[in-house]
Amino acid sequence: MQIEVCHSPAQYPLFHKPNHIVVVIDVLRATSAIVTAFYHGVTKMIPVASLEEAKRFQDLGFLAAAERHAQVVEGFDLGNSPFGYMNPKLKGKTIAITTSNGTQAITIAARAERMLMGSFLNLDALCDVVAEDGRNVIFLCAGWKNKFNLEDTLMAGAAATILQNKFAYTTACDSTIAAMHLYRTAESDLFAFLEQSSHRKRLSKLQLERDIHYCLTLNQCPIVPELDGRYIIKA
Amino acid sequence: MQIEVCHSPAQYPLFHKPNHIVVVIDVLRATSAIVTAFYHGVTKMIPVASLEEAKRFQDLGFLAAAERHAQVVEGFDLGNSPFGYMNPKLKGKTIAITTSNGTQAITIAARAERMLMGSFLNLDALCDVVAEDGRNVIFLCAGWKNKFNLEDTLMAGAAATILQNKFAYTTACDSTIAAMHLYRTAESDLFAFLEQSSHRKRLSKLQLERDIHYCLTLNQCPIVPELDGRYIIKA
Repeated sequence: MQIEVCHSPAQYPLFHKPNHIVVVIDVLRATSAIVTAFYHGVTKMIPVASLEEAKRFQDLGFLAAAERHAQVVEGFDLGNSPFGYMNPKLKGKTIAITTSNGTQAITIAARAERMLMGSFLNLDALCDVVAEDGRNVIFLCAGWKNKFNLEDTLMAGAAATILQNKFAYTTACDSTIAAMHLYRTAESDLFAFLEQSSHRKRLSKLQLERDIHYCLTLNQCPIVPELDGRYIIKA
Repeated sequence: MQIEVCHSPAQYPLFHKPNHIVVVIDVLRATSAIVTAFYHGVTKMIPVASLEEAKRFQDLGFLAAAERHAQVVEGFDLGNSPFGYMNPKLKGKTIAITTSNGTQAITIAARAERMLMGSFLNLDALCDVVAEDGRNVIFLCAGWKNKFNLEDTLMAGAAATILQNKFAYTTACDSTIAAMHLYRTAESDLFAFLEQSSHRKRLSKLQLERDIHYCLTLNQCPIVPELDGRYIIKA
């Protein structure tokens, strides 16, 4: 079984192949929030690309989450801070969600045969589900405005390392090799490693250090969200 | 002054800005061959995207170089092996050149205000010219079929490290930070580090190990080729 890492949704068309699993990664913070939501009892999420679509679901009586520029968009129930999704009132609920980068990545790879959501929070559980499935896997980093970002690449590197060491996956993909090297350099202190990264700086300015610490914690939420038609459900 | 690293020609439109220098990097082997050619006395090169254009220049009496699938295309005078450009008969000549990835990168970034050619062979000379110019710099990796590759990223990381340490350049770009980390991991033995990389494997199969060793040698050709209109000349 082969691993590939795609750094940006804009690059995904170069990677798309039939019969592969795609794992969407948006560590800061969309997939971390989604993983947290399901772990805390949310039943379904509906990823949408635009604010207008999210609004439409809200008008239909659903809860709707919307993040732009790292903040909750006015008029919506939630943003993409994982802490917002720990609320017991969300148990059993369906939430429509749109974020700057994460839901765009989900939308662009929707034609994948199977799509899972990955984050540091569900790292081991994710690798178990991937290995059990047995297909080749493409890690799709949400990135930042279609560019490479460090935290998503590190998460892809962490997962690739586990798949290689524990499940005998291999890779012929340079971006996967690079991601594994970067993770090896970073793993002893992910937070410090990301100190210079653009998105950590962006979030720190908004006093979201607590979110960052949480999103860089391994295996806090051992569940795997999966796209099922137009919904995200628990795999 | 700021540094950015763009992993692929397909990503370049996201990076393009007025008043930046672009450094095109195709370590294995286009920019290594171009740097070698100028160091050994070639006067001008004409980068062209297609075999047809290269053929047209050949028909006009120019020497023409063409590489596809890592090999010289039949009917052309040269490929992209740097050793082919050490021939004393090429002194003073103009050569049209088309390669799989390198000349495509040159073509896509032709609207840059200034474009230089980088490789490990001219690393220090390149950084001197960039720093003397003083504008922000974008390292454009030729990559492989519009995907990330390791060797071009390492070269960008090497140059970024020098610009940061010697000339006080800074970066807010995650791909630059990653490239510098990767270079730090690799620099003690670039050849060994690239053992698992896809392109080194590809070239090794074609018995091009000697080319790879040469292309990974630092500062063998202290000159900097530059795009001037439709020609490449010595900066």
